[in-house]
Amino acid sequence: MSRIQIAKIFKDKIVDTDVTIKGWIRSVRNSKKFSFLVVYDGSSQKPIQVVADEVLTNYAEVAALITGSSVAITGRLVMGGGKIPTIEMQAREVFIYQKTDETYPLQKKATSLEFLREQAHLRIRTNLFGAVMRIRHHLAMATHQFFSDRGFFYLNSPIISGVDAEGAGEMFTISTLATDISKAPKTKEGKLDFSRDYFGKETFLAVTGQLEGECYAMGLGSIYTFGPTFRSENSNTARHLSEFWMIEPEVAFADLDEVAQLGTDYIKYLINYAIIHCEDELNFLFTREESTAPENHMETLKHVRDSDFARITYTEAMEILAKVDPSVKKFEYPVGWGLELQTEHERYLAEMHFKRPVIVTDYPKEFKAFYMKLNADNKTVRAMDILVPGVGEIIGGSQREDDLSKLSTRMSELNMSQDPLWWYMDLRRFGSVPHAGFGLGFERAIMYITGMNNIRDVIPFPRTPKNCDF
Amino acid sequence: MSRIQIAKIFKDKIVDTDVTIKGWIRSVRNSKKFSFLVVYDGSSQKPIQVVADEVLTNYAEVAALITGSSVAITGRLVMGGGKIPTIEMQAREVFIYQKTDETYPLQKKATSLEFLREQAHLRIRTNLFGAVMRIRHHLAMATHQFFSDRGFFYLNSPIISGVDAEGAGEMFTISTLATDISKAPKTKEGKLDFSRDYFGKETFLAVTGQLEGECYAMGLGSIYTFGPTFRSENSNTARHLSEFWMIEPEVAFADLDEVAQLGTDYIKYLINYAIIHCEDELNFLFTREESTAPENHMETLKHVRDSDFARITYTEAMEILAKVDPSVKKFEYPVGWGLELQTEHERYLAEMHFKRPVIVTDYPKEFKAFYMKLNADNKTVRAMDILVPGVGEIIGGSQREDDLSKLSTRMSELNMSQDPLWWYMDLRRFGSVPHAGFGLGFERAIMYITGMNNIRDVIPFPRTPKNCDF
Repeated sequence: MSRIQIAKIFKDKIVDTDVTIKGWIRSVRNSKKFSFLVVYDGSSQKPIQVVADEVLTNYAEVAALITGSSVAITGRLVMGGGKIPTIEMQAREVFIYQKTDETYPLQKKATSLEFLREQAHLRIRTNLFGAVMRIRHHLAMATHQFFSDRGFFYLNSPIISGVDAEGAGEMFTISTLATDISKAPKTKEGKLDFSRDYFGKETFLAVTGQLEGECYAMGLGSIYTFGPTFRSENSNTARHLSEFWMIEPEVAFADLDEVAQLGTDYIKYLINYAIIHCEDELNFLFTREESTAPENHMETLKHVRDSDFARITYTEAMEILAKVDPSVKKFEYPVGWGLELQTEHERYLAEMHFKRPVIVTDYPKEFKAFYMKLNADNKTVRAMDILVPGVGEIIGGSQREDDLSKLSTRMSELNMSQDPLWWYMDLRRFGSVPHAGFGLGFERAIMYITGMNNIRDVIPFPRTPKNCDF
Repeated sequence: MSRIQIAKIFKDKIVDTDVTIKGWIRSVRNSKKFSFLVVYDGSSQKPIQVVADEVLTNYAEVAALITGSSVAITGRLVMGGGKIPTIEMQAREVFIYQKTDETYPLQKKATSLEFLREQAHLRIRTNLFGAVMRIRHHLAMATHQFFSDRGFFYLNSPIISGVDAEGAGEMFTISTLATDISKAPKTKEGKLDFSRDYFGKETFLAVTGQLEGECYAMGLGSIYTFGPTFRSENSNTARHLSEFWMIEPEVAFADLDEVAQLGTDYIKYLINYAIIHCEDELNFLFTREESTAPENHMETLKHVRDSDFARITYTEAMEILAKVDPSVKKFEYPVGWGLELQTEHERYLAEMHFKRPVIVTDYPKEFKAFYMKLNADNKTVRAMDILVPGVGEIIGGSQREDDLSKLSTRMSELNMSQDPLWWYMDLRRFGSVPHAGFGLGFERAIMYITGMNNIRDVIPFPRTPKNCDF
């Protein structure tokens, strides 16, 4: 008999029917003459309870199963008789693919998050990671739905890149010469001769798809990327990954207000989609004993979905922060116009002052990338960050400088060479239009919605300094 | 007035309404007292025709516009009076963002595919690339829809990898030491000391997400990846890219037949989705003068969508090929059991023998990766390739070896170290189940459906040997 997914049994409320399920044992509880097997197959947060008894020819073997064993079970679905009636299965046949024993790493309770990171190949078998990764899936689907419904086209921007698009220098080099440099061609200065490397020049892992996104917005109107991006910065924090996924919409003819609204709508859409599609998963995450989600997080999410985000300028943000009574909140970093908004400041604004997401606009140009549109004050740029409680910055965006001479001037001020970006300058030479966009860090959005507090636990196989297993 | 997308005007058949469109000039045709501007905004294949006349204060300037200029036009939508009545616009106001002149690279007719590859930042502005990339978008949406509807979860497998998952060695090295090897730490043998590199070991760009996909299938049941993969092979062909996108489903409890059927259903779904969502784009591609699509390609696609794929074993394929009359088709490479199926053979089977997609199964183990399930004959493995007319292999898949000792033996035969794959072996140690999956090259699928015959023209910014601009 072909298998049925457990999710389908609960969704379609299938009872009084013979089916085969295939999955893994979560737990076994034995009483005198029968056993309760809790079985999951990954399709749903909720496992199914299977009643096995001496009808089974291999009952003794079945009753001795422990967590992690793989099975195919044929039997009848019936409405169980508990306080809250739920569908369960009366087993007629239990086929055992493989028994686990006490060497199985995921024994009950031996499951600290640190330990599970070392078992990233197995941790998806736990309730916790099943919940997080199903939510991740649904947020990805929500992303495509949201942009596609609004006439945006999905752009696969290149991963291998010849330019440092953010000018920050935190990039991984890609090479086919590096494996054995003793045999590789070198320059007179003793460096690798990248002109004889695979691509004929030094290449990097992309830190953003934005610049290519701008090219495509000039042809397709509205685009979004959704792909991996990379930073080689040496940050070992709960908020940084060396490899992470980013969504970057870019909109021709849009100004900063329009993309600030787009970002707001998108975050609300993600929240709403998760509430609709992942109710079991969110409830599991928010009610488990070790939950790191804020109190009443489900209500908070619903509130955020239904209310407007605060909007202030960087200048106003600094004024608010300057007035904070140190007995209420003492900042580690100083506050004042011309200083960076640190994560502690961002979180204060979102968590304590506004108690909801806040959009901060018009930052000093010194803190932002070369391509952002200069304001008339000649000091600030049309940038925006969206800050959310618990996480801080989740979206960073801007209106782009669409005037060739202004862009050129800014690049000169920053001692940037225009040569490698000749094609980017071309966008301002031929048919230039106002345009704007933003980037959302996918993992940070997942952290915000799930209440998970370490970014390594919301991506399947995290890459961080000194850590590239699996 | 906020802009309306041109696609929406045609879709909702909006007439007798004042609107603002924002886009670019495709062409201008002047008659004595008025001009026809053909304007596109990327939202649709079909542009809109705008009638401009002396009502405009800047009429002389507007009439002098050439292709590529950017404009915002406010006016009234009316039903035009041509043979096939279509919606057009009567301009009341034309705002010019930027005029192009004869330096604009995309002048009419100066548009060979080779030239456009050098202008990859601009080529999306042409009818041709607009069509291809909108189809690419819809095929990506179709992919998520197809798998999501079937209970598969989207997995972001890692891009930075510590293992050579295919054992083929065609990998790019990632390093933060390679930028300046003169200053980098080295081993006694004069190689880069990867133990002191960013990840503490040598790392690569992933050639597949399959192995991590198997981990997740053991937790979520059915998963699929959809992400970039990489090969550093030195292939300068119309079918190879160094960076390409792949879709890799992996299904717990499935055998080869089940994933062969899944692959068949998926390809049919892609075709059907394109026909439904991209009618204008496909018609444009198939009817333009320089079209590289086969004759009657739309009918062929519909036929493939509605008919079954042929299924043969590798052994049967060789028998068919051995009987081919050399006067009908002369092969460059020899044919016989134990020899590789070359692209010319694959294309013969799909194009001339079966005249439809064909699934070839059970290849000699020597040609296939270490993880494929050995058949009882001890010579062949449970592998399958799906071959399509015009392209050749589009899908490669297999049932995976789920028996630890058999997998172990095969790896020893191939002199593979199990150490870096301890986690992959664990999947066979704990709760192992039969499972199978495949990989579909996204660009090859796009080539097949669009009839484009160079893979560099179906990805936004192609990466190939010595070629990493933009």
